[in-house]
Order: sequence, then structure tokens, then C-alpha cells
Amino acid sequence: MGLKNHAILLIHCTDRKGLISTITNFLFEHNGNIIDLDEHVEKTEGVFFMRAEWELDGFTIPKEDIHGTFQDKIASQYDMNWQLHFTDKKPRMAVFVSKSSHCLYDILSRHYSGEWEIEIPAIISNHTVHQTIAERYDIPFYHFEINKDNKQEMEQAQRSLLSELNIDFLILARYMQILSDEFINAYPNKIINIHHSFLPAFAGAKPYHRAHERGVKLIGATSHYVTADLDAGPILEQDVVKISHKNSVEDLIRKGKDLEKIVLSRAIWTHLQRKALVHNNRTVIFD
Amino acid sequence: MGLKNHAILLIHCTDRKGLISTITNFLFEHNGNIIDLDEHVEKTEGVFFMRAEWELDGFTIPKEDIHGTFQDKIASQYDMNWQLHFTDKKPRMAVFVSKSSHCLYDILSRHYSGEWEIEIPAIISNHTVHQTIAERYDIPFYHFEINKDNKQEMEQAQRSLLSELNIDFLILARYMQILSDEFINAYPNKIINIHHSFLPAFAGAKPYHRAHERGVKLIGATSHYVTADLDAGPILEQDVVKISHKNSVEDLIRKGKDLEKIVLSRAIWTHLQRKALVHNNRTVIFD
Amino acid sequence: MGLKNHAILLIHCTDRKGLISTITNFLFEHNGNIIDLDEHVEKTEGVFFMRAEWELDGFTIPKEDIHGTFQDKIASQYDMNWQLHFTDKKPRMAVFVSKSSHCLYDILSRHYSGEWEIEIPAIISNHTVHQTIAERYDIPFYHFEINKDNKQEMEQAQRSLLSELNIDFLILARYMQILSDEFINAYPNKIINIHHSFLPAFAGAKPYHRAHERGVKLIGATSHYVTADLDAGPILEQDVVKISHKNSVEDLIRKGKDLEKIVLSRAIWTHLQRKALVHNNRTVIFD
Amino acid sequence: MGLKNHAILLIHCTDRKGLISTITNFLFEHNGNIIDLDEHVEKTEGVFFMRAEWELDGFTIPKEDIHGTFQDKIASQYDMNWQLHFTDKKPRMAVFVSKSSHCLYDILSRHYSGEWEIEIPAIISNHTVHQTIAERYDIPFYHFEINKDNKQEMEQAQRSLLSELNIDFLILARYMQILSDEFINAYPNKIINIHHSFLPAFAGAKPYHRAHERGVKLIGATSHYVTADLDAGPILEQDVVKISHKNSVEDLIRKGKDLEKIVLSRAIWTHLQRKALVHNNRTVIFD
Repeated sequence: MGLKNHAILLIHCTDRKGLISTITNFLFEHNGNIIDLDEHVEKTEGVFFMRAEWELDGFTIPKEDIHGTFQDKIASQYDMNWQLHFTDKKPRMAVFVSKSSHCLYDILSRHYSGEWEIEIPAIISNHTVHQTIAERYDIPFYHFEINKDNKQEMEQAQRSLLSELNIDFLILARYMQILSDEFINAYPNKIINIHHSFLPAFAGAKPYHRAHERGVKLIGATSHYVTADLDAGPILEQDVVKISHKNSVEDLIRKGKDLEKIVLSRAIWTHLQRKALVHNNRTVIFD
Repeated sequence: MGLKNHAILLIHCTDRKGLISTITNFLFEHNGNIIDLDEHVEKTEGVFFMRAEWELDGFTIPKEDIHGTFQDKIASQYDMNWQLHFTDKKPRMAVFVSKSSHCLYDILSRHYSGEWEIEIPAIISNHTVHQTIAERYDIPFYHFEINKDNKQEMEQAQRSLLSELNIDFLILARYMQILSDEFINAYPNKIINIHHSFLPAFAGAKPYHRAHERGVKLIGATSHYVTADLDAGPILEQDVVKISHKNSVEDLIRKGKDLEKIVLSRAIWTHLQRKALVHNNRTVIFD
Repeated sequence: MGLKNHAILLIHCTDRKGLISTITNFLFEHNGNIIDLDEHVEKTEGVFFMRAEWELDGFTIPKEDIHGTFQDKIASQYDMNWQLHFTDKKPRMAVFVSKSSHCLYDILSRHYSGEWEIEIPAIISNHTVHQTIAERYDIPFYHFEINKDNKQEMEQAQRSLLSELNIDFLILARYMQILSDEFINAYPNKIINIHHSFLPAFAGAKPYHRAHERGVKLIGATSHYVTADLDAGPILEQDVVKISHKNSVEDLIRKGKDLEKIVLSRAIWTHLQRKALVHNNRTVIFD
Repeated sequence: MGLKNHAILLIHCTDRKGLISTITNFLFEHNGNIIDLDEHVEKTEGVFFMRAEWELDGFTIPKEDIHGTFQDKIASQYDMNWQLHFTDKKPRMAVFVSKSSHCLYDILSRHYSGEWEIEIPAIISNHTVHQTIAERYDIPFYHFEINKDNKQEMEQAQRSLLSELNIDFLILARYMQILSDEFINAYPNKIINIHHSFLPAFAGAKPYHRAHERGVKLIGATSHYVTADLDAGPILEQDVVKISHKNSVEDLIRKGKDLEKIVLSRAIWTHLQRKALVHNNRTVIFD
């Protein structure tokens, strides 16, 4: 149906009286038709968050000048953290995967059925087992055989590839390697992980085994931006499903797979819609 | 902790460019500190909805002049449907009840533990069975023995009482009488009912029996504003709970009670926060 | 990991004292190691339901004689409705699909990742759009172009194909054709449909449009065995997801897709585990 | 409607072939009409669990001899852990409470509306603030002013009171004192606590503050049997509710209250129905 010709502003800054009226006036005065406006004020910290989406057709500032104009007229005075996005450019997403395939299959089927407006220029794996899936969907597959000795070197090669392919953001679709801090810091709030527990419960390895051992009555999945602190980044999405004493660890793994793929895909959707902002390791999700 | 000294505007009108900036400018220019702002545009119909809450301390329009000023300067030009509320006035709520007590108990315990900023000047019933509960909580209890012949007369007496007691809104806490259209129309979007099904499934009588008969795997509860069309008013809140083939009708009733009281109380909370707007028999809920 | 060598009994009959002890004695006396036993008594109707799964290794009745022996020694005396299944035989499942692909993709990815022990000898469609998906997964694709005039003939051809391929059960994975009663009756409790609403709400066409119109706060999906009565067959699985006034019909469709595929796959899992029994148009699900 | 005249057996022991047939034969031979039978085998550990409920009318073993007969004929041979309960005796429950009232109100309203077949001979508190609630419901209120110095002495006094009142089990309805190991060990699997988080996440103090700080998207509540290990006892029931970045800590507390009271009441229901068994710090819940 063709990509929309919209612009999206994502802003956060210290709260002040009149911020909303200032920003909406800016858009209004340049004939911007606001499609969606969301704002939030975190009162205890006094932080202002806003997402505005407007139509570019008829907007009196040329597309290439919006960034500069907004910076000069508004953002600089208020010391804003802000981003500008255009909806007519498909983001380029790389998928990292190890041996589990359920999230990969789910991502590819959404991609191929046109649910998401993205490009997937690479599936990257430390195993070769999913090469055939990639081939089935005509997506380039890159294998990096990682061991203790070559880890740094392999990461460097991965980063070169991402750079070369102009990758915008990364999905760790049950990727079982820990990325270095350096790698993570190169993609701030641009690496989305799925962890197979209701964080902060069962961070780290083998969460379903530990959930079974503890005898919980619900299992969860958590999708979050990756930070240097393992399984502790800003949470995008969480959900749970009921289990019972009848369920073995294998049942938890099976039930959890459905949860993981749905939770991850919701997080990707939120990210793609530019509806997530991060502050103090927490997300503001404009849904 | 004392009631806050805030004002709340609830607006809906035909959408136009610049509405948000006009309204927020109005508040900004009079030194209003916006605590919460939410807006929504229904695109297919082109309708604009907004809720704004701001502090009255420092606001340069005297409280008693806000209504007139906003009407003259803003509302009249845009042909707005709008309401103005002040948070320092506790709304007066009447509770209608028949023989089931779970919603009544839940309402009273919230009232007495200070969860809600309301007054409850009357519990009204077509039975006497809950008089002792009312007495236990020192709330005036009014019994109206309704039969086929006196229904109109009893309703008239109820309405006189509500009027005399300056009741702002009504809760039908499993009240098993159908109100006349005349009664309902006197309290538009001010009568909140709880129906013990996931509407529109099982509207009307004995929903749990019919749910059991149909073999559904979830039962629901729906809280809605009452309109002349039975169980078809604008929905405020819905939720469901899992059931299984093991559950008898009695189990459904028992499980449903918890759902009903929680769903009703969430709807009351939304109403009390002035976070519900109604348009075309649907609600906009600013949560 | 190889298929297990288990037998499964599914029984329902009029309840009587001693049924459980009779059946478990039968298995015990022939050295059957019971892996899983579930029973349920529907008290209002006095119906007994049971599922028993036991290991065939060491069982003293030869596999080919179990059916006859159980019929003679037990089933005939109690006038039982009963089925016997062996877990070492993969059921053969046909998938019917129209233009939506999300359920089809989900089924195929589960199949290929080995989540289900099944064979899929056919994808059957009244459109050609998903032929490429079928080819991608090396599954034979059969196109039946159905119109008003050839409907009966096409159905006959479909049934011949199913028969020829020894199909055990059918999935209507958002198949938009109504099957004839004759077709349905040939596969009693062997055709699983996914309906995109929380039945019995919004049975029939365009449920998401009607859910949006009604202003519900949750949307649902229902998987059920198909009967001659449209969208009214025995329910296997239902679930819901929250929506809000912000969601357009398109949002409902998008959110609903995830629900549909998960709910359908849970229903298929239940059917594959032989954990569903049908009585009086309701299911008993041994989970 | 009068208490039923049923007996309930709760059993767990090492799994062996023929256990179910042995136990159901025992009941069958003495003319016991089984109302409900549930069994579970934990395969990895080889443990057998069973709950059987049958009618005493017509049962050929006199009520007072059932315990001895079952012990001699069955339990002793299989080295069973087992309990026998009769449904015609209302269990006596003590409620411990501190300053929060929502769980207390919920318990009392269920008690007074006849939802549970129990007696509540005591509300016990380390504060006096809820004395009026107790008086409103005519339940004896006992105040124990606990400080660092008298803790042991006060606990001793509490235990004497419980003993004197023949209390069967205890509810910690947001009771903010930690019981001594000695106290806890005197009531094994007979003290039910409600913790205001999704355990094991946020065990210990101030879970809602920590949930807010972490930025989770769901908050939970957990009801469990109390063991010497704080917030680590066998879990009876858990549930969650969605939250968002808009919610302050106060909102979490408010939303959490509803969750806590529902989760606690479900756990109490399960305990009252004798549907919970504990093994290796996990529960088997026969629902």
C-alpha cells in the first residue's frame, strides 16, 4: 500500500511549563497535520517525554531542513534529547540467532506477509543449522564460528558486516552469545533481546529449569534493549502464561516459545513505530 | 492527605488543525501547570478528544470564571462538547443493589479504606437483605419494594431521593431491576452497570448458565454506562478469567464474582478520575 | 528422539460406581505402566470421561489385540464410547487456507522445527497466492477454484483427495469457505477451525469490524471443532488480548493475528495429544 | 445449604504400578461413591500424588474407623504421606494483619456472604487500627504490641491464643512481622502468606518501589505457604496485571491491592478445598 510520508519527533528533556504548546505551535505554524501526539511527564524526576507524528504533505519546512530548523528554533533552548524519523524509509534489521528457530521463523513470516515495513539484509549465526531457513526465504546468511579464542575477532567481523550493510538495529532472536560492552555501546537502544523469563526473575541461564524448580505458577518472557548489564536493560514488553504442576521443564520450554515469539514481535513493532523512549534504564512506550 | 486543587477539562469536537496548540496555549497563558494531558483523534470520523488536568494554584483565571472564559474564548468557536471538573469536590455516589453482596462489599471496603475520594449518601435496594451491611458501615439504606404495579411510582420516589441527596452518579452493583428510559436519560453517562458476561456475548439473563451450556473456556465481566438499550451501553472495562470443563455453573458464579467486583471498581475509578469520554456509544478511556 | 510406544484410551459413558477401578485394574493386570490418567465426571448429566496413557513395552496384550480385548472385557458391558490411539503413528493433517497466511506460516514453522509429531501431506486452497509458501516448505499444494456453480463438485474432489492421502484430520487455517454438512459429518471432531472472535460474540463475518463498532475492550479468538452449525461447534481453546480506543480496525486485525495463530496451535496440540473429548457440543480437555 | 458429608484423602508416596487401582478398589469395595479423583505422577522424581473425595453416606466403614483402616490396609504398605479430612467440619482460620486493610476486608466479606465454609475466631494484629473493622464484623480482635525486646514473648502469647482457640490454619493478610522458625514449624503448610510481587522477583521489602525502579511492564502477587526461608515457600497461586510508564509507585500499590486480595483468596479457597499438596517445596494443586 506504499509507505506513508510522515515525520516523527521523539523528545525528552527537563519538564517546563509551555513545552507542549511550544512544540505543537511549531508544527501548527508550518502547516503540519498532527496524526498522533503523546506526551508523558515523569513527575518525581521532572522529565518531559513526547512523540509527535505529522504528515509531511503540505508541511512548509522542506524535509531536509526539518532537523536543522527544529534544532535551532526549539531543541537548543530546552536542551532536548531528540530524534527525527521519516516513515518512508524502511529500517534495516539484522537477526542474530543460535540454535532455537521459533523466533526466527516468526520474524520471517511477519516479514514475508508484509506485516512490518523493514528490510532484513542479514541473518547472523554462530551455528549453521538455520542456513536452510535463510535460504528458503532468500535472506543472506552469515556464519561466524565463535570460540573462546576468536571471540573478539569474530565480533569485529560482525560489526564490519553490520556497518557495510547499513544495519539500523539488531534483534537477538535467542542468540546465545554475550556481546561485548564495546559492541553494545555502538548500538545504544538499537539491540533488542528476548529473554525467556519474567525479568528480573530468573535472569541468566536456564530460566525454565529454574522456574520449574521454584514451582512458579506462571512463566514469562521479556523483551528489552540490550545494555552492558546482562538481562538488565530497559524493558520493552513482558507477558506471562499459566503453567501447573503437571508441566515438565519440556512443557515450559514449549509453552514459553509461543510467549517469546509474541513478546519479541511486539517489542519490534513498538521499536519500528518509534514508540519507545529510554530514560534512566526504563522505557516510555507510547502505545 | 487532602484533596488536590486541580481542574480537569474533558473535550470532544470535530477535529481541526491547531486544536491542541489552541487549548494548551489557553492554559499556558493563564499560568496553568498541566499535570496530565491526553488527546486522541478518531481518524475515520474526524473527532478530537482531549483530557487536560492542571493545577489551580497560580492559575490566573479565578475558579468561578474558568467555565465562562473557556466557553467564550475557545469552546464556542469550535462547537465543543465539554465538561469542567474540580478535584476538590467529592462526587456523591448512590449504590443500587439487589441480593448479591460481593460488589457492594467491595465498594464499601474501598470507600472505608480511603481508596476513593467519594461520598456515599445512599444504598438503594429492592430487597431488605443488605440493610445490615449498610448499618455496619453507617450508610443510609433505602428500601423500595418494587412490583409490577408500583414500578413507575417507586422509580419516581427513587429519583426524588437521588435529587434530594444531590447524587452525582449511580452504581448498579448487580441491581436486578431494569430502569425506565426516562430514568436512564436523566443520568446520561452517569449510571454504571456491571454485567456478568463478556459483552456482547450473553447479554440479558443468566449469562453464567449460558456460558456453561455453550462450553466457553473463558468467562468475562463488563462494566458499562447504562443506556436505554439493555446491556448495550458504552463499555468502560472488561476482563476475563479462565474456566474449564471441571467447573460447574456454581464455580462460574463464584469465579465470576471476583471478576465482577474488580471490573466494576476499575470502571468506577476511571469515572472518578474523569478519564472516560463517550462518543457514538463507545468510550475513550484516558488511562 | 523417536516416537514413544504408548497407547491412549479415551472413554466416555454413563457414570457408575467402580468404573475407574475397573479400567485401571484392566491395565494393571496386563502389566500396563500408566503414564497419565485423567478422569472427569459431569455430575448434572452423570457422564464419566477418562483418558489413560500407558506404556506398551511390557504390556501383556499384543498391540493388535488391545482393541478387541478391551471391547469384549470392558467397553461392551458399560456401553462405552471409546477410542484407542497409538503414539508411534504420526497423524496426517491437511491444512485448508484462503488468503491470510499467518496461521499457515505458524503451522509450517512448528512442523519444520519438530514441535509436532505429524505429517502434512497437503495444503489445500481456493486461491493460488500461498503456493509459493507451500513450495518453500516442500509441501504439496492443491488449488481448488471454487465458485457458486462448482462448489459441490469441488468439495467432492477435495474429499477424494483427502481420502486418497489418508488424511486423519483437517485444519481450517482461516479458510473462508463454508463446508457442506455432508463434508463436515464425514469428519466428526476432526475438523479444527479458528474463528477470529471470542465466541459466541461476533460469530459470522467481519468480527473485528463489529468488535470495533461495539467498542469492546478485549478481542478474542476461538478454536473449535467444526459442526454443521456455523461457528457453534465444541470449543477447544479461547484467549483474548486487550485493546483500547486508540486501536483502529487494522490494529485489531494485526493484534488478532497473533491471538489466532497461538489459539489455533494450542487447539491442534490438544487434539494431537488426544486430550479432547466431545459430549453435548462441549469439550472435556485433559490438560 | 448445609455442609456436605464427604471424606477427602490426600496422598503422596513413591510411585508404583497399581497404586490407583489399589486405592480406588479400597473405596469401591466399601461402597464409596467417588465424587472427585485427581492424581499426578511427578516422573523425574517418581512421586505419586492423589486426591480422592467420596460420599460418606453408604460408605461401609464407620467414619471414626476410616483413618485406622486405611492406615492398616493401604498406607502402611506403601509408606504413604497422607491426610484424611471431613467436609462437615468447618476449619478455624486466624487472620493476621498489620496496617493494610484490603485483604482483611476481602476475607471478611467472603466470610459474611457465605462464600467459604470456615470459622474466624480471631483477627490478630500488631496495630490497633483495624479493631473497628473487627468489631463491625463481630470478630474477636487481639492486639499484640510487638517491639524488638518483646518479640519472642509476644509470639509465645500468640501461639497460646491460637492453641486455645483451636486454630487450624493462619492467614498473613499483609502482616508485616516475620515469624520465628519455631512458630512456622509448628504450622507446616498451614500458614498462608500473600506477597506483593511475582516471586521470585522482588522478594523482601518494598516490591512495588523496586518494580517501578526496574521498569517492569507487569506487576504480580504471590500467595504461598510460609516456610522458614523468607518469601521462598511453596507457591499456591500467582497472577499479574499490566502496568505502564504512566503508573507511579502509588498506582502500582493501588493496582496491586486488587491483585493481592484476589490471589490470596484463591489460595485460601484451594487450601479449604484440600486441593493443595506440598512436596520438595512445590505445590501440586488439584483444580
